[in-house]
Amino acid sequence: MNPENQRILEARLEIIGRVQTPFVEQRGTPIQPSFAKDVKGRIIVEEPYIGALEDIEGFEHIWLLYWMDKAAPFRPRVVPYMDVQERGLFATRAPCRPNPIGISVVRLLGREGGILHVSDVDILNDTPLIDIKPYHPKFDAHPKSRAGWLDDNTEDRSVADSRFQAPLSRMREE
Amino acid sequence: MNPENQRILEARLEIIGRVQTPFVEQRGTPIQPSFAKDVKGRIIVEEPYIGALEDIEGFEHIWLLYWMDKAAPFRPRVVPYMDVQERGLFATRAPCRPNPIGISVVRLLGREGGILHVSDVDILNDTPLIDIKPYHPKFDAHPKSRAGWLDDNTEDRSVADSRFQAPLSRMREE
Repeated sequence: MNPENQRILEARLEIIGRVQTPFVEQRGTPIQPSFAKDVKGRIIVEEPYIGALEDIEGFEHIWLLYWMDKAAPFRPRVVPYMDVQERGLFATRAPCRPNPIGISVVRLLGREGGILHVSDVDILNDTPLIDIKPYHPKFDAHPKSRAGWLDDNTEDRSVADSRFQAPLSRMREE
Repeated sequence: MNPENQRILEARLEIIGRVQTPFVEQRGTPIQPSFAKDVKGRIIVEEPYIGALEDIEGFEHIWLLYWMDKAAPFRPRVVPYMDVQERGLFATRAPCRPNPIGISVVRLLGREGGILHVSDVDILNDTPLIDIKPYHPKFDAHPKSRAGWLDDNTEDRSVADSRFQAPLSRMREE
């Protein structure tokens, strides 16, 4: 057995929808929802999944999980947007991850059938969506959690540049 | 073009590590980290990714993203553990999702090389890990967010039964 193959999950990821936002390139895109206050977007959910949206209207925030298909390939150390020195990739939210899956908690404004109206989006336009989960403070909120280098960071930056942008899409159609 | 194929991301998910926990079956496993206080686990990170763990020790909590390979296939409506009536799947954290990706925020106790010692784990033993992200209250904490049916739920349940368990693994090797 090839140990490299043992590390591959031949998972078939389904695109459950697309994210529509005002951001067409990484440069200038907010790096987190907390830096995207009141930026509006829409989630267009594919038909087979619309029934699964029922009851979501009651949640003020939802998690979006998405495939960052325009991110550069994995590298183990990066200079994150909010710092001036290199950090281990897993100690950052940079998109050049082994699996380029992003998570963002956005504000849910309303639903019309298979369309979710959201605010506070930090996601590139047309990004493939792979999951939606309800946000629950009891599960997800640790407001005083210690946050390593981010507690001491001096780089006051709220939007991206092109440092993590791939020359080609990472759809990986091979 | 087949519209069904357009919804498939032929993504190659890499297993970056495995989660070791005391839980060998869904029945009896805590359904969220908040119900798994002080339950210890270990993350065994694969060699190519160990360098990317640097600087993670400073974070009190980390996000684990994992592939729930023992979850039942997607269904659009479920009776979640914490309720007695059906809800839309995307309004729940049930594992039978179109893409069975779980997210859990666990407490980081320490690191020894490629091993992370964690607490508050609600994950089945040997689950494939696909990402680790630092938890930052500024990005992730909305302690007063309204949480729909979960704010009114009357079902006081903290551990799973077998309702979302697949008869076969969902590794999807086809």
